[in-house]
Amino acid sequence: MPITVPVLREGVDPAWLPPDAFRPLGARRTLVHGSGPLVDTVHGEVTYASGRLGGEVVRDASGAPYDLVLRVADAAGNPAEADDLGDLSNLGDLGDLGDEGFVFERSDGTTRVTASGQRGLLYGLFHVVRLGEDAFHGTRDREVHRPATALRMLDHWDNVAVHPVMGQVERGYAGGSLFWQDGQARGELERVQAYGRLLAACGINAVSVNNVNVHEAEAHLLTDRIDEVARIAGALRPYGIRTHLSVTFAAPIVLGGLSTADPLDESVRGWWAEAVHGVYSAIPDFGGFVVKADSEGQPGPFTYGRSHADGANMLASVLAPHDGTVHWRAFVYDHRQDWRDRSTDRARSAYDHFAPLDGEFAANAVLQVKHGPMDFQVREPVSPVLGALPRTRVALEVQATQEYTGQQRHVCWLGPMWSEVLRFRPDGEQGPVIGELARGGLVAVSNVGDDPFWTGHPLAQANLYTFGRLAWQPDADARRILDEWIALTFPSAPERLVEGLRTVLHGSWRTYEKYTAPLGVGFMVQPGHHYGPSVDGYEYSPWGTYHFADRDGVGVDRSAATGTGYAAQYAKAWAELYESPDSCPDELLLFFHHVPYGHVLRSGETVVQHIYDTHFEGVEEAEEARRLWAGLADLVEPAWHARVAERYEEQVRNAREWRDQVNSYFLRKSGIPDGQGRTIY
Amino acid sequence: MPITVPVLREGVDPAWLPPDAFRPLGARRTLVHGSGPLVDTVHGEVTYASGRLGGEVVRDASGAPYDLVLRVADAAGNPAEADDLGDLSNLGDLGDLGDEGFVFERSDGTTRVTASGQRGLLYGLFHVVRLGEDAFHGTRDREVHRPATALRMLDHWDNVAVHPVMGQVERGYAGGSLFWQDGQARGELERVQAYGRLLAACGINAVSVNNVNVHEAEAHLLTDRIDEVARIAGALRPYGIRTHLSVTFAAPIVLGGLSTADPLDESVRGWWAEAVHGVYSAIPDFGGFVVKADSEGQPGPFTYGRSHADGANMLASVLAPHDGTVHWRAFVYDHRQDWRDRSTDRARSAYDHFAPLDGEFAANAVLQVKHGPMDFQVREPVSPVLGALPRTRVALEVQATQEYTGQQRHVCWLGPMWSEVLRFRPDGEQGPVIGELARGGLVAVSNVGDDPFWTGHPLAQANLYTFGRLAWQPDADARRILDEWIALTFPSAPERLVEGLRTVLHGSWRTYEKYTAPLGVGFMVQPGHHYGPSVDGYEYSPWGTYHFADRDGVGVDRSAATGTGYAAQYAKAWAELYESPDSCPDELLLFFHHVPYGHVLRSGETVVQHIYDTHFEGVEEAEEARRLWAGLADLVEPAWHARVAERYEEQVRNAREWRDQVNSYFLRKSGIPDGQGRTIY
Repeated sequence: MPITVPVLREGVDPAWLPPDAFRPLGARRTLVHGSGPLVDTVHGEVTYASGRLGGEVVRDASGAPYDLVLRVADAAGNPAEADDLGDLSNLGDLGDLGDEGFVFERSDGTTRVTASGQRGLLYGLFHVVRLGEDAFHGTRDREVHRPATALRMLDHWDNVAVHPVMGQVERGYAGGSLFWQDGQARGELERVQAYGRLLAACGINAVSVNNVNVHEAEAHLLTDRIDEVARIAGALRPYGIRTHLSVTFAAPIVLGGLSTADPLDESVRGWWAEAVHGVYSAIPDFGGFVVKADSEGQPGPFTYGRSHADGANMLASVLAPHDGTVHWRAFVYDHRQDWRDRSTDRARSAYDHFAPLDGEFAANAVLQVKHGPMDFQVREPVSPVLGALPRTRVALEVQATQEYTGQQRHVCWLGPMWSEVLRFRPDGEQGPVIGELARGGLVAVSNVGDDPFWTGHPLAQANLYTFGRLAWQPDADARRILDEWIALTFPSAPERLVEGLRTVLHGSWRTYEKYTAPLGVGFMVQPGHHYGPSVDGYEYSPWGTYHFADRDGVGVDRSAATGTGYAAQYAKAWAELYESPDSCPDELLLFFHHVPYGHVLRSGETVVQHIYDTHFEGVEEAEEARRLWAGLADLVEPAWHARVAERYEEQVRNAREWRDQVNSYFLRKSGIPDGQGRTIY
Repeated sequence: MPITVPVLREGVDPAWLPPDAFRPLGARRTLVHGSGPLVDTVHGEVTYASGRLGGEVVRDASGAPYDLVLRVADAAGNPAEADDLGDLSNLGDLGDLGDEGFVFERSDGTTRVTASGQRGLLYGLFHVVRLGEDAFHGTRDREVHRPATALRMLDHWDNVAVHPVMGQVERGYAGGSLFWQDGQARGELERVQAYGRLLAACGINAVSVNNVNVHEAEAHLLTDRIDEVARIAGALRPYGIRTHLSVTFAAPIVLGGLSTADPLDESVRGWWAEAVHGVYSAIPDFGGFVVKADSEGQPGPFTYGRSHADGANMLASVLAPHDGTVHWRAFVYDHRQDWRDRSTDRARSAYDHFAPLDGEFAANAVLQVKHGPMDFQVREPVSPVLGALPRTRVALEVQATQEYTGQQRHVCWLGPMWSEVLRFRPDGEQGPVIGELARGGLVAVSNVGDDPFWTGHPLAQANLYTFGRLAWQPDADARRILDEWIALTFPSAPERLVEGLRTVLHGSWRTYEKYTAPLGVGFMVQPGHHYGPSVDGYEYSPWGTYHFADRDGVGVDRSAATGTGYAAQYAKAWAELYESPDSCPDELLLFFHHVPYGHVLRSGETVVQHIYDTHFEGVEEAEEARRLWAGLADLVEPAWHARVAERYEEQVRNAREWRDQVNSYFLRKSGIPDGQGRTIY
């Protein structure tokens, strides 16, 4: 039986799956062949589209020809069931497709998607949707599609009970939670299913449904409230999403009444084994746990003098029998640092903690590492941890939610940033080993909430889509992914709109970088909520986030020779590059070095003049984008256009605030006037 | 019938009315003569004390001699009722005692308190309590006691419904609200009555029971929830406290469904008249309204193009028939100022708004003016508004709650600051016209909550007591008031404890000033919660709070010649003094002038060296006070001592943070090293 495609309430944006995106597919005669729940989903999708657009769907092979054949075949390329689909031998060996890959081809007027697993068929379906009419014209040679990594995940920092400080969704900028409301799982889960559908269409296969900071109410999801998680899992399952849960390492104490949570204590292990058994009884395909341990106040193995490998492996061992995974976050540092102490460097912390543990983690433990050594700043070097544990499953974590990149009030398309990270080679070599960093998985903190546009800022949908597609194919051209997103979201967009969307999105990350914290220095944000400028906001704080600006210069000396030694955590080629202010890339200069305001950058400009120039430019670019967007009003659905236009007002206002505060700060401190004589306050 | 004296729950501190404070009174034979509810209160107090201590109380004259006679007499000095109290003629004319004054004398072994009004008798009773044994020895000539002003008020910034940002008590540092809990008036009001008793004992006669920022739930107190206010008023009434309410100027719209709140609109006036009628039906002795209008987002008459006199007078006119008063706050300024705009000066604002309105306010309108032109900083000049409206009832508002003075985690006894303010003569003359500023009333924002010690920091009780006594007698010596407080709170304290308490309290305000924002510049605090240092925290904000520090100097030029002109808002003598950096008092220099770091103060020290020195000294003083307090452990009740000791730990920690952040900030900015070579980071 085909499933019923979830229908969105009036007013909820269809994002990148508007009905028109299915127009080419829905008008055709399609065979869906194979069996199983995800095949039912594929069947449901095609049936729904055909129902709207006059196509025809056949489930069991019954007489050719078809415009489109979607089928699950066995490992040898044979149809899953005896049927009459014609010659399949040219598909060759499908064994290496795995559960998620698929083969796409078109010949003799028929487009064929063949998968060896049901998930692959689902992804193949959306591949056809993405191709649109192109999927049904001419001949296309056999293409094999496989994801680069099996783990393509979104972490939701959603609280069940509204947190008094952090609210319903920690660092959420898109309304409430999709999953939780009024302290419990939502009763109506159709939108959750629709969310799963959007994620499947860009290749995401895993979701964690609660905040990594696990508060009291949320701790109980693991045990007596697992039925609520099971209902969410049930809504996500038809789209191939495995549900995960963030848990507190102190659960044996908090929930189990034990006196310890020591990972080497047998009663603790026993408690966890029991708990995991309960979870899998409720959710047979449960994905696993996400754990933030010994970090920012969360409990962890350090309490018991155990290593993080001890902690992760204990959980891994109880999850293993169920095919579950533990996602262990490497975000461990001293968040009560004394700002007076310049010998401690937060950037070093994750490497110092985890690099020595390489090889000690279980096979089903994933070490989840933020892309930079600090915390999702607009510009950071790639974390050296990502190259430091070759014998460990390391997943790369990025932030789709725009905590430090404009909080979905600013346009900031992160595709180029993520691409740069994914193209980084830890060994310092040049060349095409793209995506190496993502071999253990790609994880993003979700930017989605119950906002009608899903992401608050409608253009922030592009970040979610881009993340999913990069997780599938880390070496993909981000701009090509963006074009996919534009084509799906605006299926009949005239060239002026396409070009306009490209223009406002392509450079938006660099624009944001220009008007905010300069040259990689980071953290010049308002403390707490992290929106808007406060140059000294984190300068005298316990969070390990300093720029050390004085009347002579600015930046953090992280060299091996005279600084904290962070630069030496990289392989030789990178370490040498970063070690010297002369070779260090401009955009990371203040991350690695404390330099005088008159220091001349590789660009030929002085540091302080660079600060002035980029801040004026950044605001001008934001103003120009706002102007451009205003000119597209005739081409975009009014509510959609208005929401973006309204956010541009705020972006420009806030960008000017960034410009003037940062420039004034450095003018007052350096005393060096702007070379172009512009107004600085 | 005597009233029942409220009994505190176990664990609640008796503050300055411990049972032992009544020891001298309670052991004697007392006549309470007169009738009325407050005489019943006096009777109850004496009865309660006598019951504990073996004294005797007589209500109707029945044979002398008495140790103590407390009586209400008529204006001619005759007993209120026919009785046999002996010769009263020597009391002379009591007409000028008013309702609150009393005469105290002792002769022939009898101590006599005679009042012409019931309130006077209550205050006379507590005068006897304060005197202790001294009230019963020898002979004392007739003393006439009258309060300097009829309005001695505490404003509670208590929310009924917990505010998502500001909590139960806005700027409250002593737990929850005494009045409100779980969104409604407390069911058990015995502690409220005990609070009224403490207030009466220091002379306070008015309380406003809800926050001047009137949110949605609180708006309804005026109408459909007035019964809750009436219950609180009932608990305060036996101690002579009139209850007031903060109301929203938009009430006719919010509650009445009118389309306007224009004060000149007849339907608006009619609505208010009706509302006031309802209030007085429920609370016949209701005091009046407190209004924060056109301020920090609160609505006001400006919306309708009306003046603040229009707004205040409309409310005054509907309150007048009931003997009610409107307290109109002068805290009006642009809280969305552009920090780039140096021509706007928040300090000027209240004067600019209100000085032109002198003579226009109704007789029962009180203009409530903060002591400084900004916002309760540890050091500000006295507000020029206080001298600018001679034909207006102007009340002085201070903050007992320590929003900017350590939040009841730091010891900061504010008596000396308030005394300085009260001794300020707006006309610039020297001499004894003390208390002129307080002729229209004295108002403090309360520092009390449901904390067992009432004020969070037990030593902060001294602020509340001092405020009440200064309100009664503004020219009183603050140190003498503190001695009263010590004697009442610790009735049998040995000299070492008395001396210790004096030492830790006397200089505490100046100590706090030393380690926080220097030389009157103010506002170097963490934004939002206002605890702890953030030198640039309010520098680029919309709140009108700037210090303009750059690499060369710091301070705000508020001179008439080259600055904002604020200095010219004072009478000539003050204006001239403040106008020049040479004559401006050091402690206000940066409030009035922007000067180079090398500027030499009247003290002979440079500005930057003064900053360093005072910050080191301030921390040393806090450390010394902590040490001294530790040495008093044997003399103070353990829980009381421990609470103070624990707060000293935090005070010293936080004072060091202030010292190091402020010193580091100015070292980094000025580049001028400390002359004594101490460590600055």
